[in-house]
Amino acid sequence: MGATMTETSEAPQPQAGPQPEGDARRVLKVALLGGGTVGSQVARILLDDAEALAARAGARLELVGIAVRNVDAPRDVELPHGLYTTDAEALVGSADLVIELMGGLEPARTHILAALRRGASVVTGNKALLAQDGATLFDEADAHGAELNFEAAVAGAIPIIRPIRESLSGDRITRVLGIVNGTTNFILDAMDTTGAQFADVLAEAQRLGYAEADPTADVEGLDAAAKAAILASLAFHTRVSLDDVRCEGITNVSAADIAAAQDAGLAIKLLAIAELVPLEPADGAEAAHDGAAGAPREGVSVRVHPTLLPRTHPLAAVRGAYNAVFIEAENAGSLMFYGAGAGGAPTASAIMGDVVTTARRLLAGSPGRTGTATRTLPLVGPEAVTTSYSIGLEVADEPGVLARVAAVFAEHGVSIETMRQRIDGAEPASEGAGARPQGRRAELRFVTHRASEAALAATVADIKNLDVVESVTSVLRAEGV
Amino acid sequence: MGATMTETSEAPQPQAGPQPEGDARRVLKVALLGGGTVGSQVARILLDDAEALAARAGARLELVGIAVRNVDAPRDVELPHGLYTTDAEALVGSADLVIELMGGLEPARTHILAALRRGASVVTGNKALLAQDGATLFDEADAHGAELNFEAAVAGAIPIIRPIRESLSGDRITRVLGIVNGTTNFILDAMDTTGAQFADVLAEAQRLGYAEADPTADVEGLDAAAKAAILASLAFHTRVSLDDVRCEGITNVSAADIAAAQDAGLAIKLLAIAELVPLEPADGAEAAHDGAAGAPREGVSVRVHPTLLPRTHPLAAVRGAYNAVFIEAENAGSLMFYGAGAGGAPTASAIMGDVVTTARRLLAGSPGRTGTATRTLPLVGPEAVTTSYSIGLEVADEPGVLARVAAVFAEHGVSIETMRQRIDGAEPASEGAGARPQGRRAELRFVTHRASEAALAATVADIKNLDVVESVTSVLRAEGV
Repeated sequence: MGATMTETSEAPQPQAGPQPEGDARRVLKVALLGGGTVGSQVARILLDDAEALAARAGARLELVGIAVRNVDAPRDVELPHGLYTTDAEALVGSADLVIELMGGLEPARTHILAALRRGASVVTGNKALLAQDGATLFDEADAHGAELNFEAAVAGAIPIIRPIRESLSGDRITRVLGIVNGTTNFILDAMDTTGAQFADVLAEAQRLGYAEADPTADVEGLDAAAKAAILASLAFHTRVSLDDVRCEGITNVSAADIAAAQDAGLAIKLLAIAELVPLEPADGAEAAHDGAAGAPREGVSVRVHPTLLPRTHPLAAVRGAYNAVFIEAENAGSLMFYGAGAGGAPTASAIMGDVVTTARRLLAGSPGRTGTATRTLPLVGPEAVTTSYSIGLEVADEPGVLARVAAVFAEHGVSIETMRQRIDGAEPASEGAGARPQGRRAELRFVTHRASEAALAATVADIKNLDVVESVTSVLRAEGV
Repeated sequence: MGATMTETSEAPQPQAGPQPEGDARRVLKVALLGGGTVGSQVARILLDDAEALAARAGARLELVGIAVRNVDAPRDVELPHGLYTTDAEALVGSADLVIELMGGLEPARTHILAALRRGASVVTGNKALLAQDGATLFDEADAHGAELNFEAAVAGAIPIIRPIRESLSGDRITRVLGIVNGTTNFILDAMDTTGAQFADVLAEAQRLGYAEADPTADVEGLDAAAKAAILASLAFHTRVSLDDVRCEGITNVSAADIAAAQDAGLAIKLLAIAELVPLEPADGAEAAHDGAAGAPREGVSVRVHPTLLPRTHPLAAVRGAYNAVFIEAENAGSLMFYGAGAGGAPTASAIMGDVVTTARRLLAGSPGRTGTATRTLPLVGPEAVTTSYSIGLEVADEPGVLARVAAVFAEHGVSIETMRQRIDGAEPASEGAGARPQGRRAELRFVTHRASEAALAATVADIKNLDVVESVTSVLRAEGV
């Protein structure tokens, strides 16, 4: 271990072997990069709970400084002014353990790499950096025997990184479904509750502080996509970066989509989905296991999109800005982890869990390994993934329309599970009934069995070309229906 | 580290420092004690998934034997007959890592202690032993630098032990509410769904295999109490044993209780509850933090009892035999962990997560610390805990009854939050209305504000003595109402 540890003079202790917990004579120097909402809370906890943390970690965690851009900027939490510095480089050079909460790619990346090269351990919540360039950081940590922990990068306070890396390390995870962005869950939940349109709810969310002035990263699904890449890498022991994630946001989800979902006993959630996909269709070949010789027989699909879920699904009950991650594993079955996905104090809780755990291992003399990639699985595109779809159409209210639309589905091999018809809000008329008022429109909602994206796209294109179809009002994927 | 590690002859490796994952030339000898449902699944995974496990653990995990009482007994899973032995002692003496799945106090305790004394690490799911004598095992593990892990002891496949010990180690947990017994949750959920009585649902649960022929340990709450002791010890960094847990089962929960709860928007769950309780009432004294000097200002209350929960509470949605643990922490806020609480494969998943994680640390040369007790908090009895209560009464349908009952509550300082009245299933009549048929009975249901158990008990005793009260039909505690 390359980290230096300071000991106070009164009672030197041997460095090797486990130390009694509660021995606070040893000191670990902790540097904090970033003094924003989360950083302030982390500093507050390090200072206020110093005795309890020392008892649990086995050493005093001494906050040696907080690197910020402007030492005189106003802060949420009042801390000793002398802790602030603009010299992040020098701060990193003096620490056993570096907490990076600057966010963004640079200079966070440079400081993390500098710390790891010194053998200092790093705790970070930087999802963007991890999703973009995690492999470089993991390799550097392992090369220098340093720890890199990042529980706060996904789903705030919810313990999810450690359970996947450790608790489920003896199982085979097959699928991860996550509500990992609080802003979009807040918006979709409010649309579901009030019946309002996306734009109105977004404006309200901005007013309440649940959405940023520029909400792009949230509502377009980019924030969720970074988390999906991290979850997929850990769950499947392979490497997935942000560029591998197909991403669709919630800006096109309409009040009508939500109402139709409610009618059908469904809820719409923005899900980060990562799943193992067999590469060879069932032809008697054995399922691939990692570590097996030869070409991999399975690939990974990682995507973010609005998704219909049955209201009985545990994820459908996740309200407001809460997050939750649902995991399916071969032996464990279905698991769910639920909690606050953002906010200063909850995120600080995740950071501090990593800090105490990392400190314990530093004191024991051996870091945990960071890299969990034991294999390279191919990323599979939409062509290899099948999903159920919900399709909304506005059609002329004429006899024979349903038959013509159904024929297009059949032509592309897309099987229909359910159909609902609504005529200008009235009760549905039976297909082929007598004379109807000229120019009336009907709304049709289909839910399909699992179909490939290619087959679905071809179906939708041909349906659009039917003269009786006014418009395709929505196309949504569904899980668990 | 005292465990011996075997290396195959072809390529000796240094023992110190992290090894690349996927290096399967090193071998860890694994002994399995117990060949029952979970043991069979663990052995199956060790044999079938050997390559993937070696890649993740960094060493081949070699199953050297399975200790059973009768090597020729029929088994659920077919395994090589040569693995079975009746000589558990010799098996333990040959292993780097011992998986104990015998259950019960002896001989499990003896074998675990023997393994730890050799410096071998132990993974166990033995909740009874941990709840009874965990402190001895933890001390022995720490004294010999061995690991003792027990994720499977609470809530089956759900990662809960590791999140509490590690992910939340930088936070201050204030309360744990757990549905940790699948049998009782199955029964209460079925009573809720069907309206049937406890005895009928229990018989059905026994027929379906959800309840044992002798269901005492489950329905009397003893199984949940053992888990409550383990959760409380870890959450509050103190030592709690089974004897410290107050325990009440579900045998007295009636169909009428369930129906009344439904009417009030509540569900009845058997909860394991562990919470910090301030020892000095709010008089300006600061809240105690662990590690602080002087007498502790807070204590721990640990109990198991049927509990009313609002149907909107995340725990209320836990159906069938599923388990869930709800945690409140100062910074993280509310968290919930949900999944399968029992069964061979799910429990084996938890065991194998511990096995792989323990193996990684053995290879890194430093075990994790087992003991998490950093302080000794007093256990507080019912007198220091306040709860809301729901009380059901059968009373004479006469003018003035409600006033007389309400006066008794007031006398003992117990404040009433809501009251519902039902007269032989009919609509409630207003208090003090005109003449009513002689001998008619009414049912009153009160929900109180938080009150001490002593005040509640005195209230109930005095209410029973009122001549207008036929009987007290139920007294249930409530959380979160």
